[in-house]
Amino acid sequence: MLARTGHLFDEATRVTAGDSRWQGQTSEDYWAFVGPFGGATAATILRALMEHPERAGTPLAMTVNYCAPIAPGDFDLDVRLVKANRSSQHWCVELTQGGGEVATLATAVFAERRPSWTHQPAPFPQGLPFEQLRPYPRIKATWANQYDFRFVEGTPDFSGTVPQTEPASAYSKLWIGDRVPRKIDMLSLMSMSDAFFGRVFHATRAMVPFGTVSLTTYFHADADDLAAEDTTRVLAVADAKIFHKSYGDQNGELWSPNGRLLATTTQIAYFKA
Amino acid sequence: MLARTGHLFDEATRVTAGDSRWQGQTSEDYWAFVGPFGGATAATILRALMEHPERAGTPLAMTVNYCAPIAPGDFDLDVRLVKANRSSQHWCVELTQGGGEVATLATAVFAERRPSWTHQPAPFPQGLPFEQLRPYPRIKATWANQYDFRFVEGTPDFSGTVPQTEPASAYSKLWIGDRVPRKIDMLSLMSMSDAFFGRVFHATRAMVPFGTVSLTTYFHADADDLAAEDTTRVLAVADAKIFHKSYGDQNGELWSPNGRLLATTTQIAYFKA
Repeated sequence: MLARTGHLFDEATRVTAGDSRWQGQTSEDYWAFVGPFGGATAATILRALMEHPERAGTPLAMTVNYCAPIAPGDFDLDVRLVKANRSSQHWCVELTQGGGEVATLATAVFAERRPSWTHQPAPFPQGLPFEQLRPYPRIKATWANQYDFRFVEGTPDFSGTVPQTEPASAYSKLWIGDRVPRKIDMLSLMSMSDAFFGRVFHATRAMVPFGTVSLTTYFHADADDLAAEDTTRVLAVADAKIFHKSYGDQNGELWSPNGRLLATTTQIAYFKA
Repeated sequence: MLARTGHLFDEATRVTAGDSRWQGQTSEDYWAFVGPFGGATAATILRALMEHPERAGTPLAMTVNYCAPIAPGDFDLDVRLVKANRSSQHWCVELTQGGGEVATLATAVFAERRPSWTHQPAPFPQGLPFEQLRPYPRIKATWANQYDFRFVEGTPDFSGTVPQTEPASAYSKLWIGDRVPRKIDMLSLMSMSDAFFGRVFHATRAMVPFGTVSLTTYFHADADDLAAEDTTRVLAVADAKIFHKSYGDQNGELWSPNGRLLATTTQIAYFKA
């Protein structure tokens, strides 16, 4: 299925139909310093699952392990429905290039979201509205310029040197929208869950070498919920708990402007500092 | 490699050597209401990786997707090293029984943990010491009786009915040790990261039908760090952010008594309420 909106994000995450093997390609528009933006890779994999003829239900959980760099160009997605029952599906996807080794390994769970007791104990992160904040300036990584980041707290200051005597806060609160507005869907939630700047950049105030190793996102809204929110941006928070022996963590939340928790995410990332 | 300590946990998570296919078996000592305790399953898979002749480095991240019930008895573990480089390994493991479909699908990342800038922004959860607290009483699920749970906050009260007008707190702080003390290692951290009672039990105060669907744990200590801590218990906290349309999340931390964050964990679980 080709993109229907003409949005760069849909172009960047486009896949061509297959049965067990799908095809995609990296996008110059969503490029990080040494490879494609991990969020775009994750969203492309999720798109292949969403568009798969055997898909049933809505995304519940997705884990993406970034095993090796992805070179610019085409890639293959080996998509496998590992197990299905009446209410859920378990998928495994391997991304390869040129018949070579696996560059990205992902698992995903889809589920029928049936009505239930509902409770949202997490507090909505209050803050200045989107319209009252300035967009974060453009940077050299093209992917970041596809997003409109508006920081409420924890505006990046990458002027530091490592090691510092006093680490800075790793916490950020910010609005994230596509720079060209695009309605929030499962694909953009998946991508935005990897769209936080590295926590180690915030904590050290320096752009040290960095790479996400494993990313897990849980979806707390289904398609009906997202349709009801009808928004083009999320209020997002991210923080870290520890940086130790070359790896640090991140945990984050993506909220609708109305105060619904749409997704939670966690990742562990390599850094050199 | 056979268990050397004679501890029930080592017996329950025992695997027999293979190359790509390993064998394990469920344990009556770590049984939940409708299948094996998910933490024991996760630890058994991790043990197969730890003991694998090609394993290099220390566990960094593990995701376990519980696809289908596991019947009492033997199971096979198809263990595959998906990608390796000088500093990390990516594994994929499928648990099957009797040549049937996949019951559990796991991915794991191992890494060389090199010295780096270190910072632990997460606050150590203060509380009464282990010795001053009473063990939680035994319950019908055998797995829980293998652990010595001592609640600092959020002692379970499962006397409620669903739906309630006022949900209770989903937060817990507790010490977790093996009931027969056993030194904390990667395997027990993996298992303990699934040893919290379901958050929905706390929030609804009722033992509703419940099952973990996907569990992700990050390890923030390597073997040297654990050896230095030299402890048989962790101080653990867990909380939930949302329960919605039959699924709820959990996030948790496992701390050494000295104040080192050993592991962080998150999961999404099915519930009926």
